[in-house]
Amino acid sequence: MSIITLTTDFGYKDYFVGATKGKILKQCPSVTIVDISHEIEKFNISEASYCIESAYKSFPDNTIHIIDVDSDRINTNYHVAIQWNNQYFIGANNGVFSNMLAKSNAEKIVALTSFSKTVFDIDVFVSAACYIANGGKLTDLGNEIFEITKLNEFAPQINTEQTTIKGHIIYIDDFGNCITNISKEMFKNVGKNRAFEITFRNKTITSIKSKYSDFVTSDKYLLKDFEGERLALFNENNLLEIAIYKSNPKTVGSAATLLGLKNRDLITINFK
Amino acid sequence: MSIITLTTDFGYKDYFVGATKGKILKQCPSVTIVDISHEIEKFNISEASYCIESAYKSFPDNTIHIIDVDSDRINTNYHVAIQWNNQYFIGANNGVFSNMLAKSNAEKIVALTSFSKTVFDIDVFVSAACYIANGGKLTDLGNEIFEITKLNEFAPQINTEQTTIKGHIIYIDDFGNCITNISKEMFKNVGKNRAFEITFRNKTITSIKSKYSDFVTSDKYLLKDFEGERLALFNENNLLEIAIYKSNPKTVGSAATLLGLKNRDLITINFK
Amino acid sequence: MSIITLTTDFGYKDYFVGATKGKILKQCPSVTIVDISHEIEKFNISEASYCIESAYKSFPDNTIHIIDVDSDRINTNYHVAIQWNNQYFIGANNGVFSNMLAKSNAEKIVALTSFSKTVFDIDVFVSAACYIANGGKLTDLGNEIFEITKLNEFAPQINTEQTTIKGHIIYIDDFGNCITNISKEMFKNVGKNRAFEITFRNKTITSIKSKYSDFVTSDKYLLKDFEGERLALFNENNLLEIAIYKSNPKTVGSAATLLGLKNRDLITINFK
Repeated sequence: MSIITLTTDFGYKDYFVGATKGKILKQCPSVTIVDISHEIEKFNISEASYCIESAYKSFPDNTIHIIDVDSDRINTNYHVAIQWNNQYFIGANNGVFSNMLAKSNAEKIVALTSFSKTVFDIDVFVSAACYIANGGKLTDLGNEIFEITKLNEFAPQINTEQTTIKGHIIYIDDFGNCITNISKEMFKNVGKNRAFEITFRNKTITSIKSKYSDFVTSDKYLLKDFEGERLALFNENNLLEIAIYKSNPKTVGSAATLLGLKNRDLITINFK
Repeated sequence: MSIITLTTDFGYKDYFVGATKGKILKQCPSVTIVDISHEIEKFNISEASYCIESAYKSFPDNTIHIIDVDSDRINTNYHVAIQWNNQYFIGANNGVFSNMLAKSNAEKIVALTSFSKTVFDIDVFVSAACYIANGGKLTDLGNEIFEITKLNEFAPQINTEQTTIKGHIIYIDDFGNCITNISKEMFKNVGKNRAFEITFRNKTITSIKSKYSDFVTSDKYLLKDFEGERLALFNENNLLEIAIYKSNPKTVGSAATLLGLKNRDLITINFK
Repeated sequence: MSIITLTTDFGYKDYFVGATKGKILKQCPSVTIVDISHEIEKFNISEASYCIESAYKSFPDNTIHIIDVDSDRINTNYHVAIQWNNQYFIGANNGVFSNMLAKSNAEKIVALTSFSKTVFDIDVFVSAACYIANGGKLTDLGNEIFEITKLNEFAPQINTEQTTIKGHIIYIDDFGNCITNISKEMFKNVGKNRAFEITFRNKTITSIKSKYSDFVTSDKYLLKDFEGERLALFNENNLLEIAIYKSNPKTVGSAATLLGLKNRDLITINFK
């Protein structure tokens, strides 16, 4: 039984997500459909790129992922299907696969040239996904290509003296935690166990927690006393994250709201 | 394997949607359940009517749709099950099937009189849907009826000189695009290729795009330069839609917020 | 075919819910996954406790429920799996099972000691759930225990003269209706059919409706005329609920917004 996942900016109010599932079930009745997110910020390719690269590793081999964010077929924004890490990814050539492909090259990429221009974008994705789910070959769907659009905005910068990493916030999650593009590996390679200061706006953090609740408690200070404290940690994708312990964007506030952080904001690490 | 879809105003926070699925799976373990929307504006029958008429066509024959919006069994608001276009629709007799039935008559309608008044409304819908999914006949569920409540608010008006269509906004989607009740067919039949002006509030649009990105680009103007432009097009349901190119209601704004449009607002097309 | 349900405070924007489903399908490909809610207020254990106790009864025997709200394994907050009413419940020992266990004792409770501390909390839950779904025994997952953390905040108070019940609001639903912890049974046992006054803030209600639309209509007053009226009723869980007829928190307002009610607010019933 195949799995098809959906990552879109459609939102949950409209009938689009349900209709997309109906179209899939028409072509492939026994498939299991999983929503990854339909609340990608509208037209925000880098959010979608972060989400799909974070999510795919939880799925079994041969899972087929549809990513529909800003997929109008105009100019170089044609549709592609990619085989990568034994899974399939279908979307537009708009940079949405940048985070994935920064880790390793695709096994195969085809341009979805076999579909009519008059068909809706999502219908191209559904047909391609169902074709694969039903056992069809990727190369039947269009011509193999070897290059694909990549967003270059993602790479953090290291100075030549190896004393500073400058990265930025690439995603703010539903808890208001701010995820940066600075990886644990880069931090270790550059830092070599030196002391460090993480700075953003006029704030500083000088340690990295192993988990959210990693505070030193005692008879004097309970864990509860640290609620609202800022902290840094490496998240489940091994990316540096700025967080507030027990944040809630809708009530007490979050890293984004309390520290004033936004997408693309600069985060600097200075090593001593 | 049957499909049961759900269209409600329950929202996603509460346990109601999950509990409804549990009830379905208890009676019909092998069914596939698809959410169409649970964010219909609360008690808004015309939103639900638009959504289900837009969504059904993406589903295979024999799909069973439950629509639970404002379904209290009071006065004439009894429950019905409808066979229409080879699919099944279950809901209250409150006008929610108006958009569908404006296109063609039902094949069969039964009043769900065989269910106790003390049972919760959603439980009536679930039992009726599962009865059909398990191979039961529609006519076992109650008495056949031949008339059903229709909302008359939907029909656009054409003047006797055939120079003007007056319609209104029936749905605002998650991108803030404003969908009207003026169909492509009506526009063509009345307009007969004459020049036209679409007006709403103090704004005017004099052309209809074939798709969102249908702007004339050149060396001087890139597609990006048109972001934020208002436009009109016929949507996937062939209804006239007023949109903003690359809108986002949460950030840069949308047709609804930037043009000040609301549900039921008047849209006029004057032909020259 | 097993059912696994999910109740979390993850929200719908991030990839977490989708990734969790991928992990489940990897270990247990034929399971049916049902979302109960992912919009539990962040870290709000009592909301989660109310939701799961309300939802479980709609599911068939042997359903497995994962509840992930504030599940960091710190101090006494270890993970547990519970067999109760022929279903399974997996979560942290943080009080989230209080509402359930206030009704009847667990058939069996095990501490999930067989899992590494370095594994993510959700991965413990997924592995335990899939182990059971695949036919494994609860007692293979850890040591049986006989006590579990209970939130005591839930119990309403009755005065010695049996003239007053003091309860409070435990949940505000998506319609803005305010659910209290005062049960129909307690109301009947204490009230013994006496007249009563329900008071909250400076407001009073002196009757309990049998359903939302239970207003006395006539030639003079249509049901429509009662929209916006406050009312009390026992909800589907037989708990006293303060509501507004045809409320909508996003537009016309709700019991929460119009009456100024919040979680934990006091509700008093005085019997004459």
